[in-house]
Amino acid sequence: METSDNATPSTEATPAPTGIAAQDWATASADPNYRAAVVDLLGALAYGELAAFERLAEDAKLAPTLADKAELAKMASAEFHHFEQLRDRLAAIGAEPTEAMDPFVAALDGFHKQTAPSDWLEGLVKAYVGDSIASDFYREVAARLDSDTRSLVLAVLDDTGHASFAVEKVRAAIEADPRVGGRLALWARRLMGEALSQSQRVVADRDALSTMLVGGVADGFDLAEVGKMFSRITEAHTKRMAALGLAA
Amino acid sequence: METSDNATPSTEATPAPTGIAAQDWATASADPNYRAAVVDLLGALAYGELAAFERLAEDAKLAPTLADKAELAKMASAEFHHFEQLRDRLAAIGAEPTEAMDPFVAALDGFHKQTAPSDWLEGLVKAYVGDSIASDFYREVAARLDSDTRSLVLAVLDDTGHASFAVEKVRAAIEADPRVGGRLALWARRLMGEALSQSQRVVADRDALSTMLVGGVADGFDLAEVGKMFSRITEAHTKRMAALGLAA
Repeated sequence: METSDNATPSTEATPAPTGIAAQDWATASADPNYRAAVVDLLGALAYGELAAFERLAEDAKLAPTLADKAELAKMASAEFHHFEQLRDRLAAIGAEPTEAMDPFVAALDGFHKQTAPSDWLEGLVKAYVGDSIASDFYREVAARLDSDTRSLVLAVLDDTGHASFAVEKVRAAIEADPRVGGRLALWARRLMGEALSQSQRVVADRDALSTMLVGGVADGFDLAEVGKMFSRITEAHTKRMAALGLAA
Repeated sequence: METSDNATPSTEATPAPTGIAAQDWATASADPNYRAAVVDLLGALAYGELAAFERLAEDAKLAPTLADKAELAKMASAEFHHFEQLRDRLAAIGAEPTEAMDPFVAALDGFHKQTAPSDWLEGLVKAYVGDSIASDFYREVAARLDSDTRSLVLAVLDDTGHASFAVEKVRAAIEADPRVGGRLALWARRLMGEALSQSQRVVADRDALSTMLVGGVADGFDLAEVGKMFSRITEAHTKRMAALGLAA
């Protein structure tokens, strides 16, 4: 996972830490619903990192040069170290990492299966779009988490360097052949559609996580707020696509 | 790359450091032939690690459980960090890492293409057999290298934990179904055959490396010695296969 380097959602709507956001894990986890929601969140994030590792390692095979291959392998390795941090944290709070990840395997594998890139550029766009959206989402959620979980989530969202690498390579390819832009714009739209459909599946399945997202457990989240969050994420996506030279 | 945990070649024939083995890089590299041979060796090893990263990441997809998947991803990541050390060393001695690796891409890719595992167990046996043979070979060569290069080569051959993991899983599978042993024994023989044929290709192509191996540059290596080295490696392979429950 990584930051989007030139278009992040506005954080104006994020309130100063109050309620759970002002608490540490020891205090916040006394609420079993909050605890279950955090285990879900870390499980989803952990499997996301493991799947990202696999995807980047797979993309490395499509790399046109040895230097590009090494660059992708480096990012894959960074994702794996994020996975380790999340798995260790799950174990530290007494959750079985594999059990915590299991509920998210089908949705993430489904997403990757439906969106297997057919070439190097599609792989770069997918990694960039997918990681940016996931990163925006987790940043929004992080603001509502207890301080300990928030620090961890923000740490594993640290830029692995993929964003600027992908932007540079994709822009160069579009400059060299503008028709590539049309194909990749369609591809990015398909990725966004698949990501939304798999997210809905996860939200529908996971009660604790959904309850946290629409309020009731963590602070400041109600349905209207979730709607605004999705608007901010979609808007940031559109800006990123424009920066890439693609119409979203 | 990793150590073989229960069968290493005898080191009786290894002489105490003399000649180049008693020198550091600054002294030894004054000989341009020796320098070229080391660049070849580090290039081959670096691309071997990058290819091992890809292979392990690929095998992770075949893992029967999430825990097995995470274990393979961890090993892949360790191979990548070995690659980084070798690439950085090549750069530090003024060699272009990509150029140093290029001559070995075809042979290593050829090996991996000819020996794509069809399931999880074949992948484990391949990683174990391939890494053990490579590790035995580099350890033999390391004893003849200057002290700085030797330290690096031995460091990247550090056990990534794959050997004991593979041995445990393969033995359990053979105990559960002895017919698996016959299939895997054939597979291991095919791997050894492919590895030898690709090594011959590399040795035939790379003058500096071959000259170092058969004496003339580094100490203690002549054709008879190379023959003995291959015997030791083959013998260690046979012992490892027996430990795994396979007839070599």
